[in-house]
Amino acid sequence: MTGADARGRPAFADRLDALVRARRSSLVLGLDPDPRNLWPDAAAAVAATRGDGPDAGNDAGAAGPAASAAAAVAAHCCAVIDAAGEACVAAKLQLACFERLGGPGWEALGTAAAHARAAGLLVIADGKRGDVPVTAAAYAQALVGSTPTPFGDVDGLGVDAFTLNPLLGRDALAPLLDAAAAAGAGVFVLVRTSNAGAEELQEARLDGGGTLSDRLADLVSELGEAQVGRSGLSDVGAVVGATAGPEALARLRRRMPRSVLLLPGVGAQGGRIDDIAPAFEPGPAGGLVAASRAIVDAHRASAMAPAAAAAEAAERLRETAWTLAQAV
Amino acid sequence: MTGADARGRPAFADRLDALVRARRSSLVLGLDPDPRNLWPDAAAAVAATRGDGPDAGNDAGAAGPAASAAAAVAAHCCAVIDAAGEACVAAKLQLACFERLGGPGWEALGTAAAHARAAGLLVIADGKRGDVPVTAAAYAQALVGSTPTPFGDVDGLGVDAFTLNPLLGRDALAPLLDAAAAAGAGVFVLVRTSNAGAEELQEARLDGGGTLSDRLADLVSELGEAQVGRSGLSDVGAVVGATAGPEALARLRRRMPRSVLLLPGVGAQGGRIDDIAPAFEPGPAGGLVAASRAIVDAHRASAMAPAAAAAEAAERLRETAWTLAQAV
Repeated sequence: MTGADARGRPAFADRLDALVRARRSSLVLGLDPDPRNLWPDAAAAVAATRGDGPDAGNDAGAAGPAASAAAAVAAHCCAVIDAAGEACVAAKLQLACFERLGGPGWEALGTAAAHARAAGLLVIADGKRGDVPVTAAAYAQALVGSTPTPFGDVDGLGVDAFTLNPLLGRDALAPLLDAAAAAGAGVFVLVRTSNAGAEELQEARLDGGGTLSDRLADLVSELGEAQVGRSGLSDVGAVVGATAGPEALARLRRRMPRSVLLLPGVGAQGGRIDDIAPAFEPGPAGGLVAASRAIVDAHRASAMAPAAAAAEAAERLRETAWTLAQAV
Repeated sequence: MTGADARGRPAFADRLDALVRARRSSLVLGLDPDPRNLWPDAAAAVAATRGDGPDAGNDAGAAGPAASAAAAVAAHCCAVIDAAGEACVAAKLQLACFERLGGPGWEALGTAAAHARAAGLLVIADGKRGDVPVTAAAYAQALVGSTPTPFGDVDGLGVDAFTLNPLLGRDALAPLLDAAAAAGAGVFVLVRTSNAGAEELQEARLDGGGTLSDRLADLVSELGEAQVGRSGLSDVGAVVGATAGPEALARLRRRMPRSVLLLPGVGAQGGRIDDIAPAFEPGPAGGLVAASRAIVDAHRASAMAPAAAAAEAAERLRETAWTLAQAV
């Protein structure tokens, strides 16, 4: 059932495990570009090409604001990947940030994904999708499959992994898990998110014991059992916020012993890297530290240029997380 | 707090209530186009224009399969709206079905939304988004706001309402609810979905009584209290599958007395229209019957052409739902 996809390449968790060990890194570069907060060179280069840059105010020029902003977003993402990618094993693309720029934004998403792939990074689409089975199958086509049409197949994003919202239950997850398995891709199911209010519903206590997060963790573990690779890790992983605290993380790790945990929230959202040690119990690829603003905005707290500051911040995070993972 | 948006038009629930009474309809036209299953005329028209049609097999021609398929999807949606829109009050666009065609798909989504609006329909974006607050704000920009960029503002879809996944809790819902309120738009929060496996998590019993769905319903009711318009209905509505059965629907209606309930699942998913009576307790706009395949695929069970069959099926559903609503 697992081990390799139709193209003969290892499945997601095994690809990840090899890359984590080769790069001595469990760092994920989060890309959630805000067009008002791009690295200056990226926006300037687009403005110079299109003649409709920041100095032109609201006069969008021939290209239109969406096309220009999307080109600047793509250039920014590529520059961030060039600067910080070497210290990372994956790029996590926040779909909302591309989607808000419409069709051109969707094209920029493809550009950023291709650039990340060319830099040797795994690509994680962070869209937290979830819908009834027939619609879930359509999302799967968009993410890791292709869509048959009378005009030929339309390829999806072809990402290595994606995030999922499990509220609709296992029949709604199935088409996405099946498509991921067929593509050798991984999934990260929301189990405990990194926002301040995550507890409200996710830690609601259930009749009979445990919380909703516990129940979701058990579901992830069960769904991932048939997807464990040579690395001992499953292609069915979970999102667990680094903000949840060490006790919650340890508890969820016990319920998902083989899942890769994607850990957002380190840095800007208040999560402490020391708190995530339990993630690494199955090995250094057991936890993926997702950092976005801590890398991309590092220059704001230094005298360095954005690229140099990002490279330094990423290397520092890589080293810290690797040292922690080795000590577990 | 409620009543009218910045442009002076009534807020969503009041616009909906007026339209429901004027059209004597609580029917929502679900558009989830599958490129393999478009009305033949729509695909043929695109093929004739582009010279890369169904008969050209996989040779996609100059336009590329995504652009051609997206054009055919847009033509199909417009034709369905022309045929069945008059019997409906809103069009519900399934984002996954457009997203899988990439950038061109996103453009087709805009075309279909504009066509629906021109036909006098409210536009509901069905994407079931949900994310941490900073990302939720980006989704809000994509759906009902605009994104400031150095090249000028990029307008979002500008829909009248959208669906939301509440798993992350109220702090994650807040940016989307705030943006909706500012735009005079409505939201439909997932409370009980229409898939066969919805019970697994949504009807999990909580410590202290009630189920997760009950808890979500209470949250919807609370969040919607400040958004009740002249119609007596709130702009904060809920998705409750028509498949949930009359007892579950009655129970959830009691917990959300002022929410508009968006009711998918009638027809293809097995929901019976007679079961949804409790939705109409606050008035005929209290329940929105979302039908997709029952209208768009009606010609498959008849000798009529697609447009005529869709018009007839929509009118029949409108009449049935209206009669039911009047009897409550």
